[in-house]
Amino acid sequence: MAVTRDKRFNELWLTENSSDNLRLSLRVSEVLHSEKTKYQDILIVNTPEYGRTLMLDGAFQLTERDEFCYSEMMAHVPLCAGSKPEKVLIIGGGDGAILKQVLKHNCVSKCVLIDIDERVIENSKEFMPAISENAFKDERAEIKCMDALKYIKDTREKFDVVIVDSTDPVDFAAGLFQAEFYNDLKNIMQPDGILSELTESPFTDTELMQQAINQMRQVFNNVRMYWGAVPTYPSGMWTYGIACNNLNIDLAEPVRSVNNTRYYTNAIHKAAFILPPFLSDLIK
Amino acid sequence: MAVTRDKRFNELWLTENSSDNLRLSLRVSEVLHSEKTKYQDILIVNTPEYGRTLMLDGAFQLTERDEFCYSEMMAHVPLCAGSKPEKVLIIGGGDGAILKQVLKHNCVSKCVLIDIDERVIENSKEFMPAISENAFKDERAEIKCMDALKYIKDTREKFDVVIVDSTDPVDFAAGLFQAEFYNDLKNIMQPDGILSELTESPFTDTELMQQAINQMRQVFNNVRMYWGAVPTYPSGMWTYGIACNNLNIDLAEPVRSVNNTRYYTNAIHKAAFILPPFLSDLIK
Repeated sequence: MAVTRDKRFNELWLTENSSDNLRLSLRVSEVLHSEKTKYQDILIVNTPEYGRTLMLDGAFQLTERDEFCYSEMMAHVPLCAGSKPEKVLIIGGGDGAILKQVLKHNCVSKCVLIDIDERVIENSKEFMPAISENAFKDERAEIKCMDALKYIKDTREKFDVVIVDSTDPVDFAAGLFQAEFYNDLKNIMQPDGILSELTESPFTDTELMQQAINQMRQVFNNVRMYWGAVPTYPSGMWTYGIACNNLNIDLAEPVRSVNNTRYYTNAIHKAAFILPPFLSDLIK
Repeated sequence: MAVTRDKRFNELWLTENSSDNLRLSLRVSEVLHSEKTKYQDILIVNTPEYGRTLMLDGAFQLTERDEFCYSEMMAHVPLCAGSKPEKVLIIGGGDGAILKQVLKHNCVSKCVLIDIDERVIENSKEFMPAISENAFKDERAEIKCMDALKYIKDTREKFDVVIVDSTDPVDFAAGLFQAEFYNDLKNIMQPDGILSELTESPFTDTELMQQAINQMRQVFNNVRMYWGAVPTYPSGMWTYGIACNNLNIDLAEPVRSVNNTRYYTNAIHKAAFILPPFLSDLIK
């Protein structure tokens, strides 16, 4: 992970290798922070078009300009598919973007956020305060810096919604796409509890996407996929898995709504479950 | 427009400047053809992940891997919104991708394709035959190499569907996003005729997108926008304008269907008209 200088134009560019054969680059106006933590490389830059941008281990995590596309779909689809979510668990998401969305729901009385790397939380608060706004200070937010795999094995809490907002499933995050993990999650979910998790791009991470959905299906009765646009994620076409154990819940049919959104609406919720045939064929 | 060699790894990469601040790069396995025509620079390469790829004046036009996302939505949405399209006009589209989709509709008796640059057609046939398959040989196809602006002023044909598959609206294609052009098109369309045109990305070409929709509204009574994913187009989130003069036609409601598609279905047709609020706000 490195910022490169385009010598001809004296420009700084930050590049993600979306795959071995595809790269996305953002022009950088200022490098704000760079740090190697116990878990990963953190890089925070400012960019002229996408605003402040967080990169972890060479992968764009979010930009101020387009994070709403991802954060709103990760949070509001499971929250609006459930009848009255009160307790929510976010795994990962140390930048606070999902937390901010979850707390828009007044029925939520408690939101536990567990990120393994407290440096992501601290740096996000310092360098990207617009992402979380006041979410970290909300009295309903409970922030824990620890391994989520351990937390879900030990806790006695039961959650109505669980949102897995992890980095790509390699290294310390590899366990977050496995059936054992989903089994542990099921144990801390209410009977009608709903899980959402990013399941990568059908173009750049086809097998990871298929694996995540298949592992979910081993554990949950009711597993669906939905999708949306996220310009700075690989290929721009992003998928999400959603699961619960009650077959009577139609995950594609919102039963609640939320205000102050820029991507999510109840109509978008329903539309996002309509998959192009090339995509539904991949997860048959 | 140039293929650059990554010296450290001895790799060839082809880069599009999606904007001044965003770049997309595909790794190249082989440069198949490079030519400067009277109108533009043509570059055709092979890539390990996206197959054969056509670039015009530095902008990715299509890749074998993801062109279906674009071609199917450009063609089948207007064709399925109309009750019985017989005569179709394609402006641009010299690669034959849209033509192939149009000819999937058996009710189409004639499809005129007008591309200003015959070298695009010839090179596409030679280096990317899988894109058009047998479409150029279909007896319903009528290929003309000339300026579309002149053709639509002179012809006495009347079309049921017009598809504007242009390059970005600069240089010789600049006229293709203007009210005068839409007026001329209206004159060669049947009373219930339907027009579709790419309207760029809301992220990288916000103003062009707004301008195209506004110019359409000056000429047509019934103008809508729909969107879809196209991974190798700027930002991956792509919009299309669709217009007709009959307010009783619900453009979002297909009245016909088509087989052998990988992106388009009637359900996707309807879903594509559901716009995230940030996008509908841009074209209010």
